[in-house]
Amino acid sequence: MASKATDGKSPAPRDVGTKRPVGRPRRVIDLDQVADVAAQLYARHGYDAVSIESVAERLGVSRATLYRTIRSMDELHTVLFERSARNVELEAHALLERHKDSREALIALITFQIEASIRMREYVGVYFGWGLPADAFERWRQWATEYERLWSTAVERAAADGHLKVDDPMVATRLILGMVNWVSRWYRAEGPCTSESIAAEAIRLVLPKA
Amino acid sequence: MASKATDGKSPAPRDVGTKRPVGRPRRVIDLDQVADVAAQLYARHGYDAVSIESVAERLGVSRATLYRTIRSMDELHTVLFERSARNVELEAHALLERHKDSREALIALITFQIEASIRMREYVGVYFGWGLPADAFERWRQWATEYERLWSTAVERAAADGHLKVDDPMVATRLILGMVNWVSRWYRAEGPCTSESIAAEAIRLVLPKA
Repeated sequence: MASKATDGKSPAPRDVGTKRPVGRPRRVIDLDQVADVAAQLYARHGYDAVSIESVAERLGVSRATLYRTIRSMDELHTVLFERSARNVELEAHALLERHKDSREALIALITFQIEASIRMREYVGVYFGWGLPADAFERWRQWATEYERLWSTAVERAAADGHLKVDDPMVATRLILGMVNWVSRWYRAEGPCTSESIAAEAIRLVLPKA
Repeated sequence: MASKATDGKSPAPRDVGTKRPVGRPRRVIDLDQVADVAAQLYARHGYDAVSIESVAERLGVSRATLYRTIRSMDELHTVLFERSARNVELEAHALLERHKDSREALIALITFQIEASIRMREYVGVYFGWGLPADAFERWRQWATEYERLWSTAVERAAADGHLKVDDPMVATRLILGMVNWVSRWYRAEGPCTSESIAAEAIRLVLPKA
């Protein structure tokens, strides 16, 4: 990758165009906005709808202007990954804070993760670390490990309270994460299932004392 | 794809070289052997180790000879998919025949599928229909639907016998398949888990009255 699209876990608005002509407004590209627009395009129009051009158009900037911040699809995917990962982690933390009961906490995590898998299904590859440039992939691996740890804490607590039978909490966590992440592979918007009905089925399976 | 690598569900040895020079042995390429060799290369040396050249070398034929039967990586993947899919389906059918008890049958399916996910993890994309040419992808879709149906029959029976709580058997089936297929994403040969220990954890999760 020629240049990094983000310089850490918290992408900040980037000042573009240092040689600004007199009278021309300084354009600041907000990376959160870029990620939002890319996510919307993926979600609404599918994988092929997303390009630097289509994102620029939605942002109301020229391709050249966006290109000064986002130079390639690799960089766009990196921005999307950083933002998706941060949001998923923040939301999961908030859920664990909110639900003190271990069973309720795990139910909330499963429900949230299925909703996220469905919402992000068109760019879920990015969220799973596929197709990221090497440096972003390394950050993804660290993030995924941290995120699994957060989940395994919730699984361990629910198991300690007798809500599910677990021998190795990390293996059980990965099995449950597989179950919910895989939804992104088979969910169809036109099908009879909703995020809620799928979550209810998953909870019935792994926490059957509903 | 210029020509189909297989002409149905049962690839037969293919006669290669119609203009055979006098005295030169007729070379018949066995597609099962091709798939075996490709699967072994993937499993032992990883994704990048597999090419028409490396398969030809292992088969003890020249690249040109193999090329008359397998013209591209697309065709190689198609052969590998056809064979993997057929074997997985045959094995699953045999397990269901063998285990008349619905709980034992589902346990056998889960155990087998986790073992298969681990064994095929280097080319699991092929087994999941990724990167297949359009006609092979269509056959994959039909196969996957059939295979899900076989699984959902087993899930439905176990649920009817009270071994797990299920509302929509197809959704429950896809959730369990996600759990076991996802193992291919996180399993590491150098890790502490075995196929058996992972299967035991999965069974503990979804069939907890072990």
